[in-house]
Amino acid sequence: MPIRPDRLMGDMRALAAIGRFETGVHRPAFSKDDMAARQWLRGKMDEAGLDATIDGAGNVYGRVRGRTRTVLIGSHSDTVPYGGWLDGAMGVIVGLEVARAVAEMGGKLGVDVVAFQDEEGTFLPFLGSRAFCGEDLTAEMTAATSREHVTLAEAMTAAGLSGKPAKHVDTARHAAYFEAHIEQGPRLEAEGIDIGVVTGIVGGKTARVVFRGEANHAGTTPMAMRRDAGAAALAFGAAVRRHIAAAGAADTVSNIGAIRFEPGASNVVPGLADMVVQVRDTDPAVLARLDAVIRETAQACAAEFSTTVEIVQTQDTPPAIMTPALVDLVERAAVELGATHRRMPSGAGHDAMVLSRYLPSAMLFVPSIGGRSHHVSENTADADIVRGAEVLLRAVTLFAAG
Amino acid sequence: MPIRPDRLMGDMRALAAIGRFETGVHRPAFSKDDMAARQWLRGKMDEAGLDATIDGAGNVYGRVRGRTRTVLIGSHSDTVPYGGWLDGAMGVIVGLEVARAVAEMGGKLGVDVVAFQDEEGTFLPFLGSRAFCGEDLTAEMTAATSREHVTLAEAMTAAGLSGKPAKHVDTARHAAYFEAHIEQGPRLEAEGIDIGVVTGIVGGKTARVVFRGEANHAGTTPMAMRRDAGAAALAFGAAVRRHIAAAGAADTVSNIGAIRFEPGASNVVPGLADMVVQVRDTDPAVLARLDAVIRETAQACAAEFSTTVEIVQTQDTPPAIMTPALVDLVERAAVELGATHRRMPSGAGHDAMVLSRYLPSAMLFVPSIGGRSHHVSENTADADIVRGAEVLLRAVTLFAAG
Repeated sequence: MPIRPDRLMGDMRALAAIGRFETGVHRPAFSKDDMAARQWLRGKMDEAGLDATIDGAGNVYGRVRGRTRTVLIGSHSDTVPYGGWLDGAMGVIVGLEVARAVAEMGGKLGVDVVAFQDEEGTFLPFLGSRAFCGEDLTAEMTAATSREHVTLAEAMTAAGLSGKPAKHVDTARHAAYFEAHIEQGPRLEAEGIDIGVVTGIVGGKTARVVFRGEANHAGTTPMAMRRDAGAAALAFGAAVRRHIAAAGAADTVSNIGAIRFEPGASNVVPGLADMVVQVRDTDPAVLARLDAVIRETAQACAAEFSTTVEIVQTQDTPPAIMTPALVDLVERAAVELGATHRRMPSGAGHDAMVLSRYLPSAMLFVPSIGGRSHHVSENTADADIVRGAEVLLRAVTLFAAG
Repeated sequence: MPIRPDRLMGDMRALAAIGRFETGVHRPAFSKDDMAARQWLRGKMDEAGLDATIDGAGNVYGRVRGRTRTVLIGSHSDTVPYGGWLDGAMGVIVGLEVARAVAEMGGKLGVDVVAFQDEEGTFLPFLGSRAFCGEDLTAEMTAATSREHVTLAEAMTAAGLSGKPAKHVDTARHAAYFEAHIEQGPRLEAEGIDIGVVTGIVGGKTARVVFRGEANHAGTTPMAMRRDAGAAALAFGAAVRRHIAAAGAADTVSNIGAIRFEPGASNVVPGLADMVVQVRDTDPAVLARLDAVIRETAQACAAEFSTTVEIVQTQDTPPAIMTPALVDLVERAAVELGATHRRMPSGAGHDAMVLSRYLPSAMLFVPSIGGRSHHVSENTADADIVRGAEVLLRAVTLFAAG
């Protein structure tokens, strides 16, 4: 087989050694270890015969020589703090291995490889892929700081970068973008499936829902005379979950991840309740419907408990649909290689979300053991990583043939 | 009429001037102003012909001379920090005015008056009335400290007290205990009623309910594969309110005053949810039934969302029933004076809760404007205070006539 498992896994483990932390990796964007990893990646791309550079945003971009029409493959090499060894890095090394295999197989197809910067948002989520695609980031980059209050400009200067991102995406050159990634969820492992054929990356809406009533003595205020913001919030939380399940699609997910009452004492009826509701789906029509469901449910619960309610949308990310013809190709590649597979949305964001605005794009997932990610325990069986690379190589080959 | 409104309200306002804060009073137990108020009260009791002392716990106790069988009337003169002018103080001055009126009316009846210490729990709730009744407080008094980390022993020494509480309750002398208090709730005002005839002081059970599931990525974890502690808590909060309403009595109250999710992020399924549930009622059988309802509902919600649940009872105060014959007398007194009235439980604790363990006891409420208390805006119309004193005097007179 053109994919060489030892070379693939050897490079994966060599990259994981840069910034190693316990069984994982600590390589936040622009850190010393992140930049060391990028230098190492540039060297590996050079070795593979690519024309490799690190651009002003920190993206490592390797262009295959002697080709004018290519497929771009990659992911990101930065990690969350004290994260896993696969989230991002696997897709970069798989891209490198597919580029090497394609070169070794000969033929007219060429593969460019990219390792994007700061997908994880240490400073600015998707900074690398958005800069690569030429999006205007001036204002966001000026405002961006880390949780440790380091500005993006300071971090870039310390990393020896110009801070002037370069646009590399080129619809004349790049016929498509492919990305391999770990699932970061439990589904493939639970169903015993090798390959997730990603149909799209979910969009999401997040809203703060704030009920305001009246704080009162919980012993002396009869139930019927209360304006209980906490009771409204609890009723809303229970009801909206059912209503979202009824109005959503099969893969819709929702979450109420935070809630807080004021004054927050056991013997005081809450005067205020503040909670965060999030919904995700790949279909904008479903998201719009769920937004209405959330608003209607909140109003009904506010009325029931004589409170007011205010809904402030704090996040609204549109879904990204993967290119249907490429989704079919990934699926066909899995079938041809005898890999079990299922179509599924991605519940997390990926660089492919950005690239899909500019290029025909596709993604595949390999199983995450225990569904774990963003933690040192993140892992995937070697055989699953190798199979992912093989399916991606086959998909790219089919694309070139197609 | 024997009750002299000018004298009653004049003394009320003179006491409110000691520790005045805005329109309220700041007179926490053992503070300089609290002790000044107690010296002033001793002087007023002396003037009224009572034999008045301040005991080792700070209680001001005035015994009528020349009587061996008396009625004890009182409340507390300490306040919550920056509280109102009526909570406690009104019952003390009403007791003093009734004692004066009874003396002026002549006859065999005698009234003793008491101003209890630290009903509000600056150091130890009901310290004064419990000490007055001879309860063994040694261990609790040794452990008691204020929120400002002052020990009770330090505060008592600074106040010039021995710290050796004296038992004064005397079933041979005290035929009954009566207490007048503001309602601290909105019911009387809302219903346009003059007098609340207190049937009992609610008992309460407070429990921490902790659901434990598994924290997961809210985008990549399908709904059916979650163990969502937050969803279990929200379902529990909504359901338990309905179940308590169905299983409780007419005046049962409940509250969920605090809730917290961990890790508490919008995009993470909560792995833990921690909430506080409180129920109050005057009937121990109702409280026992509600305890079972809470446990059953929590178990059902935990099962529905594949979490565990732990219930830790943090408070269990038994109800105090007012003596039925005295409740009837208070009601009859209101009828005879043409005061509108209703029977009702007290949702808050009062010294009568302690006294009722040792003496036949009764309480009456006067309306709280806007239901407010524990705040400088706490208030009651003068006419309502005077009417309360008149009804109490009549009840005491009926009791003596007996």
